Amino acid sequence: MKPVKVGLLGLGTVGTGVVRIVEGHQEDLQRKTGSPIVIEKILVQHMEKDRNISISSSKLTDNPNDILDNPEIDVIIEVMGGVELAKEYILRALDNGKHIVTANKDLVALHGKEIMDRAANKGCDIFFEASVAGGIPIIRTLVDGFSSDRITKIMGIVNGTTNYILTKMSQEGAAYADVLKEAQDLGYAEADPTSDVEGLDAARKMTILSTLGFHASVALSDVEVKGISQVSKEDIAYGKKLGYEVKLLGIAESKDDHIAVSVQPTMVKTSHPLASVNGVFNAVYVYGESVGETMFYGPGAGELPTATSIVADLVAVVHNLKLGVNGRETFKPYKETKMKTDEQIESKYFILLHVADKAGVLARITQVFSAQEVSLESVFQHPNTSNPNAEIIIITHNANRAAMNRVLAEFEGLDVIYQIKSVYRVEG
Amino acid sequence: MKPVKVGLLGLGTVGTGVVRIVEGHQEDLQRKTGSPIVIEKILVQHMEKDRNISISSSKLTDNPNDILDNPEIDVIIEVMGGVELAKEYILRALDNGKHIVTANKDLVALHGKEIMDRAANKGCDIFFEASVAGGIPIIRTLVDGFSSDRITKIMGIVNGTTNYILTKMSQEGAAYADVLKEAQDLGYAEADPTSDVEGLDAARKMTILSTLGFHASVALSDVEVKGISQVSKEDIAYGKKLGYEVKLLGIAESKDDHIAVSVQPTMVKTSHPLASVNGVFNAVYVYGESVGETMFYGPGAGELPTATSIVADLVAVVHNLKLGVNGRETFKPYKETKMKTDEQIESKYFILLHVADKAGVLARITQVFSAQEVSLESVFQHPNTSNPNAEIIIITHNANRAAMNRVLAEFEGLDVIYQIKSVYRVEG
Repeated sequence: MKPVKVGLLGLGTVGTGVVRIVEGHQEDLQRKTGSPIVIEKILVQHMEKDRNISISSSKLTDNPNDILDNPEIDVIIEVMGGVELAKEYILRALDNGKHIVTANKDLVALHGKEIMDRAANKGCDIFFEASVAGGIPIIRTLVDGFSSDRITKIMGIVNGTTNYILTKMSQEGAAYADVLKEAQDLGYAEADPTSDVEGLDAARKMTILSTLGFHASVALSDVEVKGISQVSKEDIAYGKKLGYEVKLLGIAESKDDHIAVSVQPTMVKTSHPLASVNGVFNAVYVYGESVGETMFYGPGAGELPTATSIVADLVAVVHNLKLGVNGRETFKPYKETKMKTDEQIESKYFILLHVADKAGVLARITQVFSAQEVSLESVFQHPNTSNPNAEIIIITHNANRAAMNRVLAEFEGLDVIYQIKSVYRVEG
Repeated sequence: MKPVKVGLLGLGTVGTGVVRIVEGHQEDLQRKTGSPIVIEKILVQHMEKDRNISISSSKLTDNPNDILDNPEIDVIIEVMGGVELAKEYILRALDNGKHIVTANKDLVALHGKEIMDRAANKGCDIFFEASVAGGIPIIRTLVDGFSSDRITKIMGIVNGTTNYILTKMSQEGAAYADVLKEAQDLGYAEADPTSDVEGLDAARKMTILSTLGFHASVALSDVEVKGISQVSKEDIAYGKKLGYEVKLLGIAESKDDHIAVSVQPTMVKTSHPLASVNGVFNAVYVYGESVGETMFYGPGAGELPTATSIVADLVAVVHNLKLGVNGRETFKPYKETKMKTDEQIESKYFILLHVADKAGVLARITQVFSAQEVSLESVFQHPNTSNPNAEIIIITHNANRAAMNRVLAEFEGLDVIYQIKSVYRVEG
């Protein structure tokens, strides 16, 4: 049997994992696809670098043309990261008729449409399972597993770094800055953690999931993003006391073809399956009109989990090669993208206020809610011994965001409220 | 566009769900597949029966030939249940070149190989996502999502009835017989609950999952089965006290291509993701050498969840029709089936003993373990106020089953042990 030849762009952690799986599982892969699979060439930046995998130096190249223009190569696996150069290489590979597997969430989130259109024009496959939630086959699940259903909500813990930090803060009562430092020392967080902790990484993944789930193109700029750097250990402690865990959730909702996508720290009821997803694990909760509640849990990153998804995509490409149907079944959003307005975005809210400790305060506060027709699920007054002021926690019933924003604006002008300490969305 | 015509065998709960989804999601299905999808004919037992769905009577038939021999029909959806007749119809439909979607776990567990071979010979698709864990796309996940990995363990809560009963027993401290009665009143358990409570239903599903996961044919007779009818509320209470929940787990393991598959009530550590799967929900935990720990959670039964999986299979068949590749990619086990011996099956054990309340008893018991080289993780002695005897709970380290059986046999002959009250496998 003619072997299928693969060009690998990048040999970092994930690229190394791809080589390990393709070599270590060669016999199984051959049984499953009917062909030997050979990593033919690997693009690296530094030819001489020490690597923790032994690879014949004849396979390495620092010239992308050796791969992109190589007529022997059938499939390109892109694990180099970055956006502009990766895009240029992938488009060029597609123009040369090569099929693509990529793990590049930034690229797919920003230029997915352009790349997929090009692939469709050229009759090439493009797969990107590893771009979201590493080892969890969530993209297949949305596209194939729920192809018969109408998905109305996707909630994801799709960033392991922030979930590690929030889990530690919850379990140890530790402060954000201390846990971030520890995560950096352990290599779970980058030296510059902005992309993770400010929710940008999660936002890119939610762009991809919502586009696939709702069949409408969602742009990164459509996603509202708030990170975890303002989450205090007090917020987490109050949440726990009332039966909630703070999680950084990506939330995508669709109703009557109107979409809202956001990323924010959220109070999740402890009984909800997402509340017990801890550490660097990821999970994606999907609600379908017919199927109801489902959740998919697994490792969100790491050399081998991510490589598993990439090589599963490679197997799919090779199946299509055998069947002669590459590029003939591409994902195309077929709905107009209509984003929800603030009036259409509904959720419960958790609000922590520092207020004057005197009679009549609660009456004035509840009056503001009632004037905006926001009804309350529960109100807790908390005597803060270290604080001369009183603390009030309010959990609302479902309220639309426009009304909630009016409530918060009025609070700003209310002299009995000293500070709006925290506002969280509530789920579960 | 030429519509794809479907023949439906059976119009019970799930069949009704299929009609609802195909009709209710017609526009989406057409966008996704490129063809209108029409339910052309439905085989029913009683033409005149009242149904809670309105269907033109011209679509109903009580003659299977109207469907099986109908040249207009491209795809057969089998949701009639039972084994022999369903098998006969499916084989006949395959001989007539029709593609098959079935939800019939009994049929797939007992005759999967024969049916799949016939489908391959005839160039027809056969899909059966709905046969295991209703709305959870676990079959796709095993076959496609983890196609690049070596799966070493599959643990499933794959029977909603027993999970409902065990959840209620755990949450309310209720006895098995009382909860079973309640489940029967609510329609969650059958009048004759044997197939569910004795683990047979779960065993059929584990046959399917292990065959797919390990690429070797596993027969129903290869599965060791123990149900939940002997689980006492005391066992559950003791388990909880030590940090375990009792769950009916299907457990399939593969090591060095040797397989063991079983279904039994198991003590699951509360920190394990399976421990918090409650009520009628199902979940399948998959461990892959490369991906590590993953879990897939969702509804295991019900009209619409099950129909979601069936119609997703139908979408896959229609895609293949469009691509002209039906039947060209069938699942074929390629490994020899080698079952593990008792010496190769390892797990921890939870053992509850009623013993004489006198000095030296513990020493004699631990001697038996040590003679068989079973080491102990922990031992709890429990003064039972309602019982003149003492109770001892022992949790072992990993032990092979042959050694464990020798320990239990020796216990039978030990005069200080009055009764081996319970023995559970431990996971998590």
